[in-house]
Amino acid sequence: MPTFTVYKGRKDGYPIKSTTTKPDELTGDKVLLKVTASGLCGTDLHFKNEDMVLGHEGVGIVEALGPEVKHLKVGDRVGWGYETNSCGDCMECIQGYETFCPMREMYSTANLDQGSFASHAIWREAFLHPIPEGMSDEAAAPLQCGGATTFTALTGVKPTDTVGIMGVGGLGHLAIQFASKMGCKVIVFSGSDSKKSQALTLGAHEFVAMEGKDASTLSVSQPINRLIVTTSVQPNWELMLPLMAFRSVIYPLSVSLGSTFEVPYMPLMFQGIAVQGSLVATRTVHRLMLEFAARHGIAPVVETFPMSEEGIRAAMEKLEKGKVQFRAVLVNELNFGRPYLI
Amino acid sequence: MPTFTVYKGRKDGYPIKSTTTKPDELTGDKVLLKVTASGLCGTDLHFKNEDMVLGHEGVGIVEALGPEVKHLKVGDRVGWGYETNSCGDCMECIQGYETFCPMREMYSTANLDQGSFASHAIWREAFLHPIPEGMSDEAAAPLQCGGATTFTALTGVKPTDTVGIMGVGGLGHLAIQFASKMGCKVIVFSGSDSKKSQALTLGAHEFVAMEGKDASTLSVSQPINRLIVTTSVQPNWELMLPLMAFRSVIYPLSVSLGSTFEVPYMPLMFQGIAVQGSLVATRTVHRLMLEFAARHGIAPVVETFPMSEEGIRAAMEKLEKGKVQFRAVLVNELNFGRPYLI
Repeated sequence: MPTFTVYKGRKDGYPIKSTTTKPDELTGDKVLLKVTASGLCGTDLHFKNEDMVLGHEGVGIVEALGPEVKHLKVGDRVGWGYETNSCGDCMECIQGYETFCPMREMYSTANLDQGSFASHAIWREAFLHPIPEGMSDEAAAPLQCGGATTFTALTGVKPTDTVGIMGVGGLGHLAIQFASKMGCKVIVFSGSDSKKSQALTLGAHEFVAMEGKDASTLSVSQPINRLIVTTSVQPNWELMLPLMAFRSVIYPLSVSLGSTFEVPYMPLMFQGIAVQGSLVATRTVHRLMLEFAARHGIAPVVETFPMSEEGIRAAMEKLEKGKVQFRAVLVNELNFGRPYLI
Repeated sequence: MPTFTVYKGRKDGYPIKSTTTKPDELTGDKVLLKVTASGLCGTDLHFKNEDMVLGHEGVGIVEALGPEVKHLKVGDRVGWGYETNSCGDCMECIQGYETFCPMREMYSTANLDQGSFASHAIWREAFLHPIPEGMSDEAAAPLQCGGATTFTALTGVKPTDTVGIMGVGGLGHLAIQFASKMGCKVIVFSGSDSKKSQALTLGAHEFVAMEGKDASTLSVSQPINRLIVTTSVQPNWELMLPLMAFRSVIYPLSVSLGSTFEVPYMPLMFQGIAVQGSLVATRTVHRLMLEFAARHGIAPVVETFPMSEEGIRAAMEKLEKGKVQFRAVLVNELNFGRPYLI
């Protein structure tokens, strides 16, 4: 039986090389991809000790097509993200909200024998997204989840809004670029001043270092209409809520925020603030995001590692130490170690 | 100096009779009202020991007009609620969101010498709302805050939505009627079965008694698109969130919910649920609510008490014991003790 290479989590230590069987014939609208690049997302760290293939920010080239594929051709470049299938028939699906399909197939809960840490992958055409011309594989990869998730959290934002972004990491540095190119005023909150110049270069208009700040010294030039929280710990809401505009919205994005979301109740009520749970992108938003990124030259700042046991381990260790600036990308080609700068 | 009667909170015990000076001449668009009825809201209990005039669900008849009054005439019937003034110039005001005006004048923070527990009151015409014909004063009074607040929490609900209402009290029994007449499916959650028949009579389609229920026995016929929480304690979210629809919204309304709002974080994210802080109604929503209530014969179920020290005390004691079904109304006319049933 033919197989392809995959990298699976393991109980102790870091991912190991393994194989997944390749079917003799592709069925339905299945597409065989040769993986060229994969982002390393914080979520992957959560599963690194699980018996499953890792990676969900994939980019690849179409190698073979199932009989019902309609649009893709061999040689096309596509990406995929957290969701790789849904029923297509339920009320959520037929409204274009397939991320809430009760039958959704998502990373870590379905298709555990496949992922983007691999030489190949097989997915339905319906959940593959064309990569715009001129966008590199390394740049496209982190957009498949990090980009899609932050873009989703900016859905409906107005160009006249002030957007607050907490945390300048994998998600935050993309949120800055998106919000800035949407025309918004962008205020970035970070622990220290260390990322200030990068944040401003990426498009931030204002940078607030939180260390040493209290209610009397923390201020912004404009109340925040939408706050995107990308940090892995909950903000000090007593400090942040006074900065929020009336009728503003908080989007907590990190899966690491803990089991309970706690926010002071009276300001929520008296300022008319909403806390909006937000997941990964629908296919519509995913594709609009890719087009938007291409049109505006938005790209993640990446650091590449080889797609190998050693490369994955090195990337994960660096991410665990918080030393990745700003997204680690595993590449199957000879392109390692080169920082991909916008 | 002429005065009128008011009832103020006092440090120990229940409100006492007092007087407020009546200006010799009304200025601007000020209107002098003879108060005919006032609802007793849970919020009034919070302030019963404060040195301020109580009551913010007022109905009265216009007795005199300031020089800049444009529309009201002597003899008109009007109501007022939590907010009685705003700047008119800020970004929130000019968008019709004067409830979020930074200069807003609201119950308990401004105009402490006036309230609806009184013989008279003087307010700006701009914050008085005409009472539709055919609506009694006793019915109109609780709509000025309780009705306005619940109607606000139903803003944007779709007639095809399923609305969950937690608690069948002053707010809940109005929310049931509004949501039902909006065409929604209405599912009511209450502690026991004791209010089941009333809830169904008011328009609920389904009634869930929470006592003794656990995750295995709690179910509803349809996922809830919007949940209005009117109880004074936080729901058990572990039980409630599985009943929520994807992309649904929770509106916590009670000011007694505690200082921190706590909700499990992962379901919020994976179900795309929002928690929406919501305050009292804007004037637009307030007036639409009154028209809607009149058109559909929506009225609170009230129990009347005389507008006097004794009457206020009796009403408050009954409300504190949770024995009011469903809204206590103080009346300045001889109409006491008669339950006003829809």
